[in-house]
Amino acid sequence: MSGFVSFVSSGPGDPELLTLKAADRLARADAVLFDDLASGPILARVRPGADLVGVGKRAGRASPSQDHVSRLLVDYARTGARVVRLKSGDAGIFGRLEEEIRALEAAGIAHEVIPGVSAASAAAAAAGIPLTRRETARRVQFVTGHDVTGALPEALNLAALADPGAVTALYMGRRTFADLAARLIAAGLPPQTPALIAEAISTPGQRIARMSVAALAEALADAPPTGAPAMILYGPLAEPARGHRPEGPEAGEGAA
Amino acid sequence: MSGFVSFVSSGPGDPELLTLKAADRLARADAVLFDDLASGPILARVRPGADLVGVGKRAGRASPSQDHVSRLLVDYARTGARVVRLKSGDAGIFGRLEEEIRALEAAGIAHEVIPGVSAASAAAAAAGIPLTRRETARRVQFVTGHDVTGALPEALNLAALADPGAVTALYMGRRTFADLAARLIAAGLPPQTPALIAEAISTPGQRIARMSVAALAEALADAPPTGAPAMILYGPLAEPARGHRPEGPEAGEGAA
Repeated sequence: MSGFVSFVSSGPGDPELLTLKAADRLARADAVLFDDLASGPILARVRPGADLVGVGKRAGRASPSQDHVSRLLVDYARTGARVVRLKSGDAGIFGRLEEEIRALEAAGIAHEVIPGVSAASAAAAAAGIPLTRRETARRVQFVTGHDVTGALPEALNLAALADPGAVTALYMGRRTFADLAARLIAAGLPPQTPALIAEAISTPGQRIARMSVAALAEALADAPPTGAPAMILYGPLAEPARGHRPEGPEAGEGAA
Repeated sequence: MSGFVSFVSSGPGDPELLTLKAADRLARADAVLFDDLASGPILARVRPGADLVGVGKRAGRASPSQDHVSRLLVDYARTGARVVRLKSGDAGIFGRLEEEIRALEAAGIAHEVIPGVSAASAAAAAAGIPLTRRETARRVQFVTGHDVTGALPEALNLAALADPGAVTALYMGRRTFADLAARLIAAGLPPQTPALIAEAISTPGQRIARMSVAALAEALADAPPTGAPAMILYGPLAEPARGHRPEGPEAGEGAA
């Protein structure tokens, strides 16, 4: 028996944003390896009796090494278990999926990847705006705000990131945004470019604020670190919609 | 009564890749306005008795105008109905979401946006690879291969699209890829850059082929048009994994 590993995308946090397939795998798992970012309500969907193993890897905090996570994954699979490796957002976007797939390949363990709702899509939806716009935002790009050391990655393509015709979604970029914004503005991005920061997307603690790139950079320059994950969008963002009801149809009917 | 419109992301085609929230809205809808791209099995999740209204907008085919779709949406909502506007992939990515939101705003109709699995995430997952890579693909960008006329969009940022450090996901780009590839190669993208085309992602008809950018351009230059939607990925794509089982854990256990 060599077991099987399902890489399951958790979506942004709200368990209702799990896919049906992800919910199925959680409900049938023997073991679930999850990051700190995966929220409690999602773990409530796991089959009772399954092993829940936290392997948190938060930026800037001590946590198990990637090698250790990969080894745990292989060891669980070798017991013949149905293993779920739960990854926040979409597993294929800034999820270090490749390193873990390589470890399974080396051990001869079969696996699947279940895609999910990425934080960029969820942040835009929570704000009631699209990520692309027909005339003005024909390209959308996702980048990460820190490398393994926690600093802004080297070798950024500043021309691509300062393009006024693209919307950029910056993952895990709160701590480095002031630095990035200075470089973007130097590369030609207008300081008044619209920006949005979304924290704890799709959870009860969700906060969304809109302001300019320059104002967001200033607000974040001296902000204390928080535990909540943040998504920053900037570029030719659509205007907010007055009729947008992120709380769903019940609230909409009440207002009718 | 002014009704309520839920913009629901259908995901790539497999109904198991609907989110739980999307499935809930379909199960409670009074009317569902869908594009041709939405597959039959997803419509099977709609509440029996609900109106199903096809408003297909396929590139290069005659179909209702955007204005007509927006008017239908407003008219249905004004009956007091729970209306679902089903959009393929993630509604916020190349889904013309903004035009329809503007129409609802003008009519004073409340709405929500439910994010979903975009075709780029689904294509990568179906191929068993991530969209980003820690060292080599730190940026991922989504672009569309045609504008409203069906031609390659003007004002492409070729430097951004030819960046060897980014993975690009090209939506609806089959017909224009040969033209785009020639421009990318002229802008410096190596012809041997890995590429992948995924058709009918996550459905029984799914086909995935990997080759170089140059080879894919040649293969598509003279290919007859097909009805299936296609996603093209190119850039520093991860190697395919031998142990990848897109058909899920049952197949994995059988092979153990």
